[in-house]
Amino acid sequence: MMTDQVTLNVAARFLSENDKYLILTHAHPDGDTLGSAFALCSALRRMGKKANVICPDEIPKKFSYLTAEGNQDFEPSTVISVDVADPKLLGELQEEYGNKVQFAIDHHGTNVGFAKMLYLDAKSAAAAECVYRVLKEMGAEITPFIASSLYTGIATDTGCFKFSNTTPDTHIIAAELMKAGADYDEINRVMFEVKSRGRLEMERRVLDCIEYVGDGQCAIVTVTQKMIKETGCDSSDMDGIAALPRQIEGVKIGITVREKVDGRWKVSMRTFEPYDAAAICQKFGGGGHIRAAGCEFGCSADEAKAQLKAVVLELLR
Amino acid sequence: MMTDQVTLNVAARFLSENDKYLILTHAHPDGDTLGSAFALCSALRRMGKKANVICPDEIPKKFSYLTAEGNQDFEPSTVISVDVADPKLLGELQEEYGNKVQFAIDHHGTNVGFAKMLYLDAKSAAAAECVYRVLKEMGAEITPFIASSLYTGIATDTGCFKFSNTTPDTHIIAAELMKAGADYDEINRVMFEVKSRGRLEMERRVLDCIEYVGDGQCAIVTVTQKMIKETGCDSSDMDGIAALPRQIEGVKIGITVREKVDGRWKVSMRTFEPYDAAAICQKFGGGGHIRAAGCEFGCSADEAKAQLKAVVLELLR
Repeated sequence: MMTDQVTLNVAARFLSENDKYLILTHAHPDGDTLGSAFALCSALRRMGKKANVICPDEIPKKFSYLTAEGNQDFEPSTVISVDVADPKLLGELQEEYGNKVQFAIDHHGTNVGFAKMLYLDAKSAAAAECVYRVLKEMGAEITPFIASSLYTGIATDTGCFKFSNTTPDTHIIAAELMKAGADYDEINRVMFEVKSRGRLEMERRVLDCIEYVGDGQCAIVTVTQKMIKETGCDSSDMDGIAALPRQIEGVKIGITVREKVDGRWKVSMRTFEPYDAAAICQKFGGGGHIRAAGCEFGCSADEAKAQLKAVVLELLR
Repeated sequence: MMTDQVTLNVAARFLSENDKYLILTHAHPDGDTLGSAFALCSALRRMGKKANVICPDEIPKKFSYLTAEGNQDFEPSTVISVDVADPKLLGELQEEYGNKVQFAIDHHGTNVGFAKMLYLDAKSAAAAECVYRVLKEMGAEITPFIASSLYTGIATDTGCFKFSNTTPDTHIIAAELMKAGADYDEINRVMFEVKSRGRLEMERRVLDCIEYVGDGQCAIVTVTQKMIKETGCDSSDMDGIAALPRQIEGVKIGITVREKVDGRWKVSMRTFEPYDAAAICQKFGGGGHIRAAGCEFGCSADEAKAQLKAVVLELLR
């Protein structure tokens, strides 16, 4: 299917002219796909349209405020997606909706072009920035609920304006959303301050098991299924654990070796210059980006780490 | 001494009309006092003025990029301060300069009015926001160095736009500074990502010793001088440790009991609604704000904690 990449103006017109929207999020939903979807849903309803959000997985508890406006009862006729770069990412919704998406709003330069029409801005830190622009183009009022939803997307996708994807426009839109009544203080607290006791226990155990390689330039931590079970961590508790080893002063290569449910070991690697995570992981059949990549091992964790250490030591030499 | 609180226009004129500036920061310098001082110093020099920054304490290593423009050799005749609310906070510089400050730029509503002239905006999240406004009023060019310095002040005083002092204007100024060339990505990394091995070891030990009181609504951690020595933490490594207990899910009262060099115990308390940290600490001769307060004990840590627990349990009941 050919995707028609459209301007803001065409995007706004499409949304104004259609009705009975089903808004899809990606699987393993994060703050951006959810915040974007519920903001758009609320704005469409305020225009007198019917609209619902559908998420392939359960919505993590900390995002429950986004669902406050509930579901409407109607037969959807216009399927749209937000923050979805590939129909594969629709998870359980792929089979039913993967080839039926009429309009997609996204910020991933890697969007595969599965929707009939696409509004994409790859310079945006979050899909929520794109949704904000579409809503402004439509002349939609940014209510406090919509502002909070979009702020959630922007703040979570940028690590609260910390990550390198943050742009001047990100800050300017955040300022507009705060003025429009976004509950930023509470959102920041829930997203960036509060840690579950399970998460804290996991951090304690992870800190207990750091292994340094190459004079402290590489740090390796191991997360077993036993640790996950004993700490009671769910997937949202595990967010950011893979970022921990590279945060250590002096560490250029941070590695997290995490046991999967099937007993295989998933390696997440984060690097700083000049080390290429994708190149290292490719040696083990994996891949990814230059600063964040991954691979998998079917052997024991010790054997996997021994292989990783050998390659890393060679590089650091 | 009466302080003359002046407008932006008068502040800018004062700086334009005088010369040979000595810019004072507060003791135990943070990113805001340093970023504000070095930004202002650089801008004054670019106007052809002589200017130096003087700091009562050693500048923490992570801020060393702010000192890149070095010192000038001249006899100062105009003393100004940035981010200093009280001459007591000048530390070792108080005796020499405490009553000689001609102009102060500050954002603390509690500024005691020690300078002859004061430009104060208590709604600003950081003194760096006030300095930015003064520089704009003077028509100063915001160079990449000045932008990085001011961004440092704003980002560090707001916990990277996370704390409740962050305003729409904070974000708008951040956007302007990014456009002017602030090295925000590296600053965010150094200020908010990198943790020293000492800091990590301290976190590990702190997580090892959490005591919960009142069904998990209160968490208490203890930091001894032995822990500080063994982990090799310096004062900047200890930043934010007092915030850890209140970050735990369900905790309404977070308490850090920290041994001072003289063997006494300093208590830092952080609370959420409805608990008043200042009121609790006042029972032990301390005080502070409603959400963050402190007190001290001369007895053993165990005895101090027993007294705190008794009061906290009574409140939580």
